[in-house]
Amino acid sequence: MGPSELGAGGNPTADQVTVRRHNLSVVLSYLRQTGPRSRARVAEGTGLNKATVSSLVTELVARGLVAEGQLDRGSVGRPGLAIELDGRKVFAVGAEINVGFVSALARNLRGDVLATRRVVVDTAHAGPSVVLERLAALIGDVIDEALPDGPAPVGLSVAVPGLIEKSTGTVTVAPNLGWREVPLVANLRRLLGDPAYPVVLDNEANLAAVAELNARRSTAVDLLFVSGAAGVGGGLVAGGRLLRGGRGFAGEVGHIRVNPEGRQCPCGRRGCWETEVGLNAFLSAAAEREDWVRDPAQDVERRVDEVVRRLQAQDARSLHAIAQVGRWLGVGAGILVNVLNPEVIVLGGYFGMLAPWLSVVVEPELRAQVFAPDVGGSRLEFSDLAFTGPLLGGAEFVLDGVLRDPTSVPARAAGK
Amino acid sequence: MGPSELGAGGNPTADQVTVRRHNLSVVLSYLRQTGPRSRARVAEGTGLNKATVSSLVTELVARGLVAEGQLDRGSVGRPGLAIELDGRKVFAVGAEINVGFVSALARNLRGDVLATRRVVVDTAHAGPSVVLERLAALIGDVIDEALPDGPAPVGLSVAVPGLIEKSTGTVTVAPNLGWREVPLVANLRRLLGDPAYPVVLDNEANLAAVAELNARRSTAVDLLFVSGAAGVGGGLVAGGRLLRGGRGFAGEVGHIRVNPEGRQCPCGRRGCWETEVGLNAFLSAAAEREDWVRDPAQDVERRVDEVVRRLQAQDARSLHAIAQVGRWLGVGAGILVNVLNPEVIVLGGYFGMLAPWLSVVVEPELRAQVFAPDVGGSRLEFSDLAFTGPLLGGAEFVLDGVLRDPTSVPARAAGK
Repeated sequence: MGPSELGAGGNPTADQVTVRRHNLSVVLSYLRQTGPRSRARVAEGTGLNKATVSSLVTELVARGLVAEGQLDRGSVGRPGLAIELDGRKVFAVGAEINVGFVSALARNLRGDVLATRRVVVDTAHAGPSVVLERLAALIGDVIDEALPDGPAPVGLSVAVPGLIEKSTGTVTVAPNLGWREVPLVANLRRLLGDPAYPVVLDNEANLAAVAELNARRSTAVDLLFVSGAAGVGGGLVAGGRLLRGGRGFAGEVGHIRVNPEGRQCPCGRRGCWETEVGLNAFLSAAAEREDWVRDPAQDVERRVDEVVRRLQAQDARSLHAIAQVGRWLGVGAGILVNVLNPEVIVLGGYFGMLAPWLSVVVEPELRAQVFAPDVGGSRLEFSDLAFTGPLLGGAEFVLDGVLRDPTSVPARAAGK
Repeated sequence: MGPSELGAGGNPTADQVTVRRHNLSVVLSYLRQTGPRSRARVAEGTGLNKATVSSLVTELVARGLVAEGQLDRGSVGRPGLAIELDGRKVFAVGAEINVGFVSALARNLRGDVLATRRVVVDTAHAGPSVVLERLAALIGDVIDEALPDGPAPVGLSVAVPGLIEKSTGTVTVAPNLGWREVPLVANLRRLLGDPAYPVVLDNEANLAAVAELNARRSTAVDLLFVSGAAGVGGGLVAGGRLLRGGRGFAGEVGHIRVNPEGRQCPCGRRGCWETEVGLNAFLSAAAEREDWVRDPAQDVERRVDEVVRRLQAQDARSLHAIAQVGRWLGVGAGILVNVLNPEVIVLGGYFGMLAPWLSVVVEPELRAQVFAPDVGGSRLEFSDLAFTGPLLGGAEFVLDGVLRDPTSVPARAAGK
């Protein structure tokens, strides 16, 4: 606090617009946290007076953010109609470009998934123009399916596996796609017909970390997410906030060197963690070259599901791959826990799909690698979001913006 | 902000004691930042009114925190006596236990070092009781020298190379000292005669990171410090604050595994970064076993100074040690920059003393290891604090507490 906020004799300087915006955010966030509540109980819970709450709710209804629902009998006195988040008008789209696929998902303010799609695209060879055309078409399909004849989304988030420059919407470098200096947001906006809603670019592991954090809001504020796909990325959360580093390049855990004797990495280095634990390393160990689970023209989740079936059937080669990859997964996770001591380390993507088998190998290796007693208290968890984490997290990121500033959503004519 | 701070129609709830304490802190922090200023200019600069500033200054003088100095002719109108931080009454002590030595330093509120001592102690074999006795004696000497016949310090910080539990003042594990579950603060307080001032325990690299951050306040808020002594520790600063991790064990960078084929570490693992770049690894590579620079009974800084002289004379073996250690230093630093992308990575302790030679080897290796272009913009810097970083940082940590709450220092009788 500066002295102007607490100084002797000064008048309050916060202007009424700021106060109103803040209070709209307080009411909306309160309803998300608690579920449906009458105006009276919202007033009770937020400390705002009843007349103010009524006026705020009227504005939130006009903006399509909340709606009246059932009678709320939870408070003393005359029951009132419960106010709840409105899932019918406000939604966000999370999209992703990764090795072998593009995907998109629509999520409303209540957190319901309204539509989700993933299609196989040879993103590593097709080139940015073709990939972005396929992505734009997919986003169009998801928007149409989400709210037929409804309003446009409040925002679109695009996840990529690589370094990005957020302010310009540029992919700086994504070695697994072979992309360098691609002005993604500008090109995608053109393909989408220059929409009114904002389009934001982010790293896939950062967005997946947001999804994992939101799933654990009550139990963790320090979290480290590790994505398991063709590439391996990290998302760092400290004190409930993404830790991006000086230029936004924090979390490039796939390219820490774990094995000086290791394989060549597409990034040009040798022995990167990704070359030991990425999806391709795992599938190479688990199956012959001509095996269909190694065919990039097949959907990634179907391929991993097939490996799961083989593991369930005790397939020796798949089990061997688990032993090999799991060991290196523990070595790298150990490095990260020694450096960061997160409350939780979450392994996502294909790691999460193979949790029952990987955990048995990773747990003891992690325990051996971490200097602090009892793994420094850092819990190892496996994500159950498979390949949807970056989509869910991206949509949540956009919707968090609405919760922080409900006036960013315009009031609409009734019925629309 | 909760709605109670901005809510409609509420009265301000901050009570007058809180406001006064806050304003004392504002004035004191302002004077530290700007240097001596008249009351009128303090009022100008802080936005507080003149009568309030006069009253605050009177209280700060009574607490021995500020004093009247020269005439200040910097403002329009009648010049007034400048108020400045008082270096004569308020000071803090930073102490350290590390492999081969104990040390202590006294620093006043103005940042002047009043006294500094380091003595050779075989801390790795003497056992905690003997080591703490030596340290207590040294702290007594430093206090006596700092302000003869003056008041006691406002606080004492003790740095150790290992994991600590801050709340209980216990060293959880410090492998290079061979310590485990040592109730350091309780034992040291007893040896010091149960003093009135607080004694706080911290990790040496965390405290050195504070010193490096304070030296760079204007240029960096995200910083990674790596200590170079017998052990190697890390201090992480993000957004201007120490990042301690879930249980306070973040920054154990000395025990990340960089070399699967590496040496046995005192921690029980193999290939830890510390076994490749710790002071003992360097001196083993730089000199024969019977060479006096490897004699732990000699002062650590003198030993490193001797290596510097040999490097200046182009001694082949010392240069070879630089090449070997520098390479591994770059490998480990590369891992940390890939994970954290700090604005600055600062190499301290003996690394800093060998900066001209190490930088030539570390820079290109770091450049090769970091995935982001141009090392992700992370600057490599070498500390010039040698082995005093944890002492300076520890004292600053204590004095920062005084700046945040000046009422923590009692008003004294005049003359004392």
